[in-house]
Amino acid sequence: MKIICQQQDLSKALNTVQKAITNRTTIPILKGIYLEALPDGVLKLAASDLDLSIEKKINVNTLQTGSFVVSSKLFTEIIRKLPEGEIEIELIDNTVMVKSFNSEFTIIKQSAEDFPEINTSENNNNLTLNKEIFKNMIKQTAFSASIDESRGIIVGVLIEFGKESINMVALDGFRMAIRKEKIINTIEKKIIIPARILNEIYKILLDHEDNDLLISINDKNIVFKIDNTIISSRLLEGEYINYKEIIPKNYTSKVKLNKEELYSSIERASLLAREGKNNLIKIKTEESKMIITSRSEEGTVHEEVYIEKEGDVLEIGFNSKYILDILRNVDDEELYFEFISNVSPCLIRPLDGLKFEYLLLPVRISIS
Amino acid sequence: MKIICQQQDLSKALNTVQKAITNRTTIPILKGIYLEALPDGVLKLAASDLDLSIEKKINVNTLQTGSFVVSSKLFTEIIRKLPEGEIEIELIDNTVMVKSFNSEFTIIKQSAEDFPEINTSENNNNLTLNKEIFKNMIKQTAFSASIDESRGIIVGVLIEFGKESINMVALDGFRMAIRKEKIINTIEKKIIIPARILNEIYKILLDHEDNDLLISINDKNIVFKIDNTIISSRLLEGEYINYKEIIPKNYTSKVKLNKEELYSSIERASLLAREGKNNLIKIKTEESKMIITSRSEEGTVHEEVYIEKEGDVLEIGFNSKYILDILRNVDDEELYFEFISNVSPCLIRPLDGLKFEYLLLPVRISIS
Repeated sequence: MKIICQQQDLSKALNTVQKAITNRTTIPILKGIYLEALPDGVLKLAASDLDLSIEKKINVNTLQTGSFVVSSKLFTEIIRKLPEGEIEIELIDNTVMVKSFNSEFTIIKQSAEDFPEINTSENNNNLTLNKEIFKNMIKQTAFSASIDESRGIIVGVLIEFGKESINMVALDGFRMAIRKEKIINTIEKKIIIPARILNEIYKILLDHEDNDLLISINDKNIVFKIDNTIISSRLLEGEYINYKEIIPKNYTSKVKLNKEELYSSIERASLLAREGKNNLIKIKTEESKMIITSRSEEGTVHEEVYIEKEGDVLEIGFNSKYILDILRNVDDEELYFEFISNVSPCLIRPLDGLKFEYLLLPVRISIS
Repeated sequence: MKIICQQQDLSKALNTVQKAITNRTTIPILKGIYLEALPDGVLKLAASDLDLSIEKKINVNTLQTGSFVVSSKLFTEIIRKLPEGEIEIELIDNTVMVKSFNSEFTIIKQSAEDFPEINTSENNNNLTLNKEIFKNMIKQTAFSASIDESRGIIVGVLIEFGKESINMVALDGFRMAIRKEKIINTIEKKIIIPARILNEIYKILLDHEDNDLLISINDKNIVFKIDNTIISSRLLEGEYINYKEIIPKNYTSKVKLNKEELYSSIERASLLAREGKNNLIKIKTEESKMIITSRSEEGTVHEEVYIEKEGDVLEIGFNSKYILDILRNVDDEELYFEFISNVSPCLIRPLDGLKFEYLLLPVRISIS
């Protein structure tokens, strides 16, 4: 194998592909990046942790076809630190030569045959989505999934492809995020993707300019295509929680408030909310204001936020981290908070429509 | 005590003063910030770790004089997160009330009487320096001081105030940095300041706009004044190494080269230089080029840099980290490297003058 390529093209591609590599793997070949020079002037780069696989193609000058695997960390660092301009890469016996201006590297290669097969096959379950919408759906849900690998299916995010909408759902036992988007759809299917992988996909989408994201689903995998990048993720097997049953159908109190004001107040109140005590803050709704309080051995805080209220007054405790997570990821200027009691979950919704719903369990408090 | 002040003024002042607080202290009062409202509409803020003390004054509206100490971490965070505008601070019994718009904090205070005295007295050993020059002198020397607290005096930076120049010197047994500045001077004195503290002073100077830095020295302390900030540092006691004796008086080979080219080449070569082996890179000078090589079990690298050479050819080993440290902190486009042999220290100098000299011990290598 022998190619000549541009440093910037190769460095950018490596930056995308190496996102599939995890430090947690104990299988040496999975710490490597696969490179294959194809006869039509295309270099294929690939990496995989078996759950997530990424493949990218760039244009190069192929002088001789062939393939090899090299240490992702070393190779990516070398290419990043070479000056802009042409790089010559040649496979000579068991080593990879990298030449550029006055630099010459000789790197031990691994065998390309040991590299895992990546499933990038398309099938009939295809659809094209707007990249920005998909990114926003990940951003507004994935943070709510469980990060405890022992919790089974809830480390994943449920994606429901319906005839007229796509829904994403994530929950961890303390909170739940539901995000809906009205889209006329060609597939009807429910899948569960590990939240960890969706977050990596989010980062990859940030780096791509194309707006069309092609999605293709089979029983075990979901494949995303954008520009010259193919991302393949393993699906989680099993039944997801029947989340619709958990959503309260009514409320005894409904509060309208400004998101930024609430965020700033809770952020300040959380300075005196201690981790050991679930970052507890207390919220009290009065006629036209919400009072947020918190206390630690260092002191106390009292914050007031203007609200419009329907229904009963209420005093309820929350883990401030969970509320801040939600407010940070929502774009709306104003929100509704719906309460039933101080031991029932609270529902956070937009003023109009059903684009998102967040369900949040309270922390039990002693009423002062 | 009761004052009204502007959030931005107070937040900026706290950001400077809290640089004197170290997490390593076990004395509770030293984790606090001292605030004193003076009758003339001035708020004095102070913090100290006993080695480094910082005091800053800002204009406020003093309604009642008085003083207290509060947790630096909590107080700084609270003030930073309050909205821009007026903040009211009032001492009521054992608590400090902080009010702003719809926020009200009550923080447990510590007693101001327990706070250590800060020595900010001026005396006859005064001089005024250009802030930018002093910053540059710290930047180009302090990184060479030892970070091993058990090494005694060499954790400090020597500052020699002479009649016509100021010299700064730092060394750690592997390398030495000397920085000279021609300045007509009113004091003649040699002092040693802990490098750790000089680095904090560097950061504080970055935040200040005034260009005049007033320096005042007594037997145990050095005091810096800039704008409304006073920084006082303990001096290290003892004799510094007679550094002038270590500087080689001649060379067998002298090389002129471009700093950026050398930096990029050594940075790439260090990708294959392993920490366990002193980050070893080999340098070979030929007639018009310097060849830089390095090898690990992952591969080898060969870099070439154009040079102009006088004298013998040479093959010598270095810890790449130490050369990169020097090149990163020097502003000159071209440099001289002077060599005696591959077991003698190498000297790095500017093309003209004696603004700086860096001495670097080689790593013993087997000649290939």
